[in-house]
Amino acid sequence: MIAFSQSSLKATTAVAARDENGVSCEVMIAGEHPLCIYFDKREMVTLMTLGRAPELLCLGWLLNQRVIDQAADIASIHVDWDTGAAAVTSQHRALSGQSWWDDPSRLDRFEQRMDRKTVTTGCGQGTMYSDLMATVREERNARHALPQASITKSQLQRVIGQARHHQAVYQEAGGVHACALADNRPGADGSFLYFIEDVGRHNAVDAITGWMQLEKQSAHDKVFYTTGRLTSEMVIKCAQMGIFILISRSGITAMGFELAQELGICLIGRCQGKHFLVYTHPERVDFAG
Amino acid sequence: MIAFSQSSLKATTAVAARDENGVSCEVMIAGEHPLCIYFDKREMVTLMTLGRAPELLCLGWLLNQRVIDQAADIASIHVDWDTGAAAVTSQHRALSGQSWWDDPSRLDRFEQRMDRKTVTTGCGQGTMYSDLMATVREERNARHALPQASITKSQLQRVIGQARHHQAVYQEAGGVHACALADNRPGADGSFLYFIEDVGRHNAVDAITGWMQLEKQSAHDKVFYTTGRLTSEMVIKCAQMGIFILISRSGITAMGFELAQELGICLIGRCQGKHFLVYTHPERVDFAG
Repeated sequence: MIAFSQSSLKATTAVAARDENGVSCEVMIAGEHPLCIYFDKREMVTLMTLGRAPELLCLGWLLNQRVIDQAADIASIHVDWDTGAAAVTSQHRALSGQSWWDDPSRLDRFEQRMDRKTVTTGCGQGTMYSDLMATVREERNARHALPQASITKSQLQRVIGQARHHQAVYQEAGGVHACALADNRPGADGSFLYFIEDVGRHNAVDAITGWMQLEKQSAHDKVFYTTGRLTSEMVIKCAQMGIFILISRSGITAMGFELAQELGICLIGRCQGKHFLVYTHPERVDFAG
Repeated sequence: MIAFSQSSLKATTAVAARDENGVSCEVMIAGEHPLCIYFDKREMVTLMTLGRAPELLCLGWLLNQRVIDQAADIASIHVDWDTGAAAVTSQHRALSGQSWWDDPSRLDRFEQRMDRKTVTTGCGQGTMYSDLMATVREERNARHALPQASITKSQLQRVIGQARHHQAVYQEAGGVHACALADNRPGADGSFLYFIEDVGRHNAVDAITGWMQLEKQSAHDKVFYTTGRLTSEMVIKCAQMGIFILISRSGITAMGFELAQELGICLIGRCQGKHFLVYTHPERVDFAG
């Protein structure tokens, strides 16, 4: 069990603006706050975030960057907005008093990865592309025996319908992206198990990774929904989570397409009302169901 | 004069997809390509890009990251998509044969900046926030004597109207953001002097920086338009360029708001049809004009 601070921020602020006629009005805008992650006192990264689920964001970032392998590696996450700092303490340190970084191979691996500054589409996190892809391929091969994920058309339309009811910050202030994890078990109503908005799509998907690991959720019976585009980074992160069906209100990019083809991931985009486009692996969609 | 390769890529690719009835159709998707920038043979960063103006992207990235101070520091930019590499050669090296990096203080400054991994909203580029802010403040003070930029309501609506005619990739494939620089001289018709689409908003604004410097364009009589949100990073980059009026189809974030307040920048968002919202410095908008 990880000890979490409860440091969720209010997502929106009211500010005075003028409309096109010069008339004063009060409008809501989305928050944006720097959060610097310290892991066993080592500074890792500063993320710009809405701050809705900062502890899950930290956990998911550490998982997606492969700094840690599992949620159980973490003892506590304490977020302090006055200093914009998230203090993450490893289980190792909590139990033995020694830092996670006392093992020099861990530091080497992290420094090596961070040294390659790949600025990914939409939100770079210094991820080393080729390295991550190799890991993702290995993991896919290991998962080969898992049940094949698929979705029916009516379930897909229920998931898309859900999204409309959830985008609180977006509807109030704009300027944010939403990601959600929806239930895709047989007979499920497509309801969102976890929903998160953030100023960066990347942060939102990191928080979802954090939530899944914390709640020990299986991936094969879930689908991932986002308001943002399905780019290479989104496909890689979902592949890391083990999710095979990705749904977006927006479009996809060529690299997202190629990766999804290779990794067996079904990309569904341009979801509007009852319409959608299946870009890859249409065998995962039951159009008659 | 910089020697440029002419390596612009086709922005979209046709792929086979299925619609919601399972019917096959051909749809266009946006490209996304890794481009690794080498500056005097030193690896700097890998950007994920649509590849419309890769040379201007490299130039603008080097300028916005403060690796170089002016376009004249560069002798040539050669982009090779087969290897995904952009070879940038400094004027220093072209003339003397010595590397830009022979001066250890340059390397120190760059390494120091890159060492702080701030993942900015939407697209992190390892920018050191506090450092950049200090530079931006200094420059603003230096610009104090410059003419005060302002815009009339009718000119603003002409700029917004222009945007509709330009978004070729977006209309064809989605999945991209556009940025443009519009003419705001007295009597100008708001036409776009430079327009660029990319998978990351950040890349688009970097290409605009590159274009402005290359063409020796003044900033005070231009306005910046984007389809993306006005976050802290966008405000900082425009402040670095010296542009005081930023217009977006989307919303703004709280940190974008605060920075713009401080830096004297007018943020106009939520532009739809004839409607818009002026969030900061409304004295720069002539609502009757």
